[in-house]
Amino acid sequence: MKDNRYSLTGYHKETNEELWLWDDLPELDMEIGYKVGALLHYEQSPFQEISMIETKAFGRMLVLDGTPQVTAKDGFIYNEMITHVAMATHPKPTKVAMIGGGDCGPAREALKYKDVQQIDVVEIDPRVIEVCRTWMTQETDYDRDGRIHTVIKDGYKWIQEQKNQYDVLLVDRSDPYGPAISLYKRPFYQYVYDSLTDDGIAVFQSGSPYYNSDILKKTIGSVKKLFPIVHTYLCSIPSFPGGIWSFTIASKKWDPLKADLNGLQWQEAKYITPEVFRASFILPGYIRSKLEEK
Amino acid sequence: MKDNRYSLTGYHKETNEELWLWDDLPELDMEIGYKVGALLHYEQSPFQEISMIETKAFGRMLVLDGTPQVTAKDGFIYNEMITHVAMATHPKPTKVAMIGGGDCGPAREALKYKDVQQIDVVEIDPRVIEVCRTWMTQETDYDRDGRIHTVIKDGYKWIQEQKNQYDVLLVDRSDPYGPAISLYKRPFYQYVYDSLTDDGIAVFQSGSPYYNSDILKKTIGSVKKLFPIVHTYLCSIPSFPGGIWSFTIASKKWDPLKADLNGLQWQEAKYITPEVFRASFILPGYIRSKLEEK
Repeated sequence: MKDNRYSLTGYHKETNEELWLWDDLPELDMEIGYKVGALLHYEQSPFQEISMIETKAFGRMLVLDGTPQVTAKDGFIYNEMITHVAMATHPKPTKVAMIGGGDCGPAREALKYKDVQQIDVVEIDPRVIEVCRTWMTQETDYDRDGRIHTVIKDGYKWIQEQKNQYDVLLVDRSDPYGPAISLYKRPFYQYVYDSLTDDGIAVFQSGSPYYNSDILKKTIGSVKKLFPIVHTYLCSIPSFPGGIWSFTIASKKWDPLKADLNGLQWQEAKYITPEVFRASFILPGYIRSKLEEK
Repeated sequence: MKDNRYSLTGYHKETNEELWLWDDLPELDMEIGYKVGALLHYEQSPFQEISMIETKAFGRMLVLDGTPQVTAKDGFIYNEMITHVAMATHPKPTKVAMIGGGDCGPAREALKYKDVQQIDVVEIDPRVIEVCRTWMTQETDYDRDGRIHTVIKDGYKWIQEQKNQYDVLLVDRSDPYGPAISLYKRPFYQYVYDSLTDDGIAVFQSGSPYYNSDILKKTIGSVKKLFPIVHTYLCSIPSFPGGIWSFTIASKKWDPLKADLNGLQWQEAKYITPEVFRASFILPGYIRSKLEEK
């Protein structure tokens, strides 16, 4: 809709020569604009356009193909909430994997659990890891710990080779468009199930429960066919459209609603606490109703 | 930042002749744009520019001076959360008032409590009430109930005349700019205290805990000087910037954390449930930390 389209996806120069990033939400007839304080990095990798910008509201922001992914100021919320719920539910998470999450935020959170011996970060685009390492990741945490192993591979192909391996698997997938689409298909959920140990737990990013409850409903429907224990939990991420966001946890044996939380590593966390853990499973009435609709 | 500024505040015609409303957040270097499906109403009242637009994401949206106020699709969240927490905490709310809230959403929620005999809705601009009545309010609920009394008056002046009157007072104020600024000043909180009965309860809209925690901190600081029981609670409103929003409840006698909630009228509500009521008082770590900072 904007004039002066810039060469980068989603970026526009306004008439007064300010550069703005516009997150276009055509299915909602909405756009969210951020003035770019500095365009710190941009490149076209073989997979996508990667940029890192400085914003006033959220500090540094990783942008892929014109869509904001994670920010310096509120990224901790997503990283903590996708990671700690499963890690604290499993009594002894030893081997952990995450598909996506090239910014390594979830991996840093998982490192806080002392039983962890190995964290496999599976990312399709090595440039995302490098750009985040340069501009966003706290390198000291990330590089000095030998437990983190980066696997540069398509997550959908990688997961098919894993059998009975992981205590906790985090599916840090982007929205179901483009490269991530296979991570929403039926077979993927079976592969996830098979990759887990007998008492393993998986967590799926499952979208906005306000704007796109279909993604959430489909995720729940798919995992309920495989896992005996399935729950959805929520958190508030200001940089995500609408703010409210969902994750779905699928477990073979351990129920997060019955977890004692003695092991929850919340002392250095900025969002999660034992009370926040429990409250995150309480769904507002309209979301519960949407999920109960046939 | 946009070209083609239209005559209405915040509205712009794009080059392809689409009309968009731009919610300008200059302190964040952000803008949020909504394509206007239809401009249903606009006028310049003696107090402000009032418009009602049709949006895809939120249905009908009341816009004052270019800033979205309440929407048809997610307005229930704000209306329920500003109203039910105090109404269910007070064992017998008989006389209720609300400052602001010309859309009468909170009043409709308060009507659900059988002990209520009178609800005074204090609104400075009668045109807001009329526009909402035409385009947004469910008229049947609103007009047929004789318990609702509309008072067309400046809330700051009106409150000074009320002494020992109300069991519950809801301060449905807009942000601390322009006409609402007096509703954030020290004397106002004393007037609110004085307007309540000996076991009265007030609730204040207290802003975004992410973007503007100073408003929240100042509100808490002011009411703590007067009320023995003060708590902040949160909800997720997708049409508000950042999504997460705060209210502060100030009570002379009844503690919402100890309320039995038998009286909570949640059966016809769409957001609040007894569990959501309790969970709303649990603050994410970073918000708790901000409030504890000196």
